[in-house]
Amino acid sequence: MYKVLDSKEYSNQFGLKSFTKYLVFNTPKRRQFVHITNEVQKAVDEANIKEGFVLVSAMHITAAVFINDNEEGFLYDLEKFLERLAPYGKHPDGEEYRHHLSGEDNGDAHLKNILVHHQVIVPITEGKLDLGPWQRIFYAEFDGQRNKKLIIKIIGF
Amino acid sequence: MYKVLDSKEYSNQFGLKSFTKYLVFNTPKRRQFVHITNEVQKAVDEANIKEGFVLVSAMHITAAVFINDNEEGFLYDLEKFLERLAPYGKHPDGEEYRHHLSGEDNGDAHLKNILVHHQVIVPITEGKLDLGPWQRIFYAEFDGQRNKKLIIKIIGF
Amino acid sequence: MYKVLDSKEYSNQFGLKSFTKYLVFNTPKRRQFVHITNEVQKAVDEANIKEGFVLVSAMHITAAVFINDNEEGFLYDLEKFLERLAPYGKHPDGEEYRHHLSGEDNGDAHLKNILVHHQVIVPITEGKLDLGPWQRIFYAEFDGQRNKKLIIKIIGF
Repeated sequence: MYKVLDSKEYSNQFGLKSFTKYLVFNTPKRRQFVHITNEVQKAVDEANIKEGFVLVSAMHITAAVFINDNEEGFLYDLEKFLERLAPYGKHPDGEEYRHHLSGEDNGDAHLKNILVHHQVIVPITEGKLDLGPWQRIFYAEFDGQRNKKLIIKIIGF
Repeated sequence: MYKVLDSKEYSNQFGLKSFTKYLVFNTPKRRQFVHITNEVQKAVDEANIKEGFVLVSAMHITAAVFINDNEEGFLYDLEKFLERLAPYGKHPDGEEYRHHLSGEDNGDAHLKNILVHHQVIVPITEGKLDLGPWQRIFYAEFDGQRNKKLIIKIIGF
Repeated sequence: MYKVLDSKEYSNQFGLKSFTKYLVFNTPKRRQFVHITNEVQKAVDEANIKEGFVLVSAMHITAAVFINDNEEGFLYDLEKFLERLAPYGKHPDGEEYRHHLSGEDNGDAHLKNILVHHQVIVPITEGKLDLGPWQRIFYAEFDGQRNKKLIIKIIGF
């Protein structure tokens, strides 16, 4: 579903570090939720950063990142909820998305990106993602079946 | 409404600091907004961090954190708005939340978490929360009456 | 549409820096989207920070910041979408916003702020905003025609 594209690491001479990693997704379905908590923890391990923030951010405007439950029923509800608020193809009053005049058919995906937000910050405490018991990180694809990038960036020490 | 659970502090030898504090909420009502600006400023004071970012993030998937007006009318409007978009019990077309097949009855709370977003970052400038004149920080509980955690994490110097 | 109000810069003796800049918007229209990617990159250049995070955050509760497409059709769709979900003047069932009892007429703008979220974090890698090919940063005004502030704050090295 995704692969690592590249990673970079910098530090200054005083022990402050940055670690940046890019994932590329190419989802089999046009709309798909991909669980990535383990991949984010892996980046924290590679960075060897004990205290800091990790930003997990979609680099496209038709995808999102969120934290919620890795439970199938919820993921079904979320897809239905987003489709109701920002349906594929047209505004609910029947007007086609104006964005489609540009030749695209993904006007709904842009609005879903706005609704869900494209990024989360996860705190890192003592080398671990400092998440609650049910919090899991997801990449949300709204216009897939092609290469889409996500950035994981850590600043800390 | 809430109490401090724990706090931790680290620094490297070059003056970079992290400060982490956990609050536990147990709201009398199932859905409730709790004003926490003063508590966040207090954490910044305890950390003695003058420049940095403070992350305020719900650790549960049925709660949220937002910044807006500490005005009763607005808080009423927000609750009504969220209840319209993600009503308790069922999707608006009458289909029960699929998440409820898992035995839960809080499908709406998960969707409200997505709508409001579970976190904010507040800039710290010269030791103070760098907020606008009306910006106040709230914890939003959507499935309370039980212990729920929130993390306040500061990185800075 | 906006001007720089002020900027401040701090560093500790070990090379960690903060850079803070405030913009003031006064939009000709009450609701307006203003493209600010170049202004954010300019702040990064002025800060001379190569690795870090830049927070771009509205300091008002009736405005927002988002990242999406600088495409007219999309911006039209977004405005229509927000107006449907949080219409000017009243809740969709005809009840006036309770917030208006305080003398305001901007209840919709508060809810639009919640929907869009008031801030983004942009990663800085090798001195550049690390954005995807179509990601552009916007200030979203929902109750303008008066002075409104936005903070750009960078932490890094």
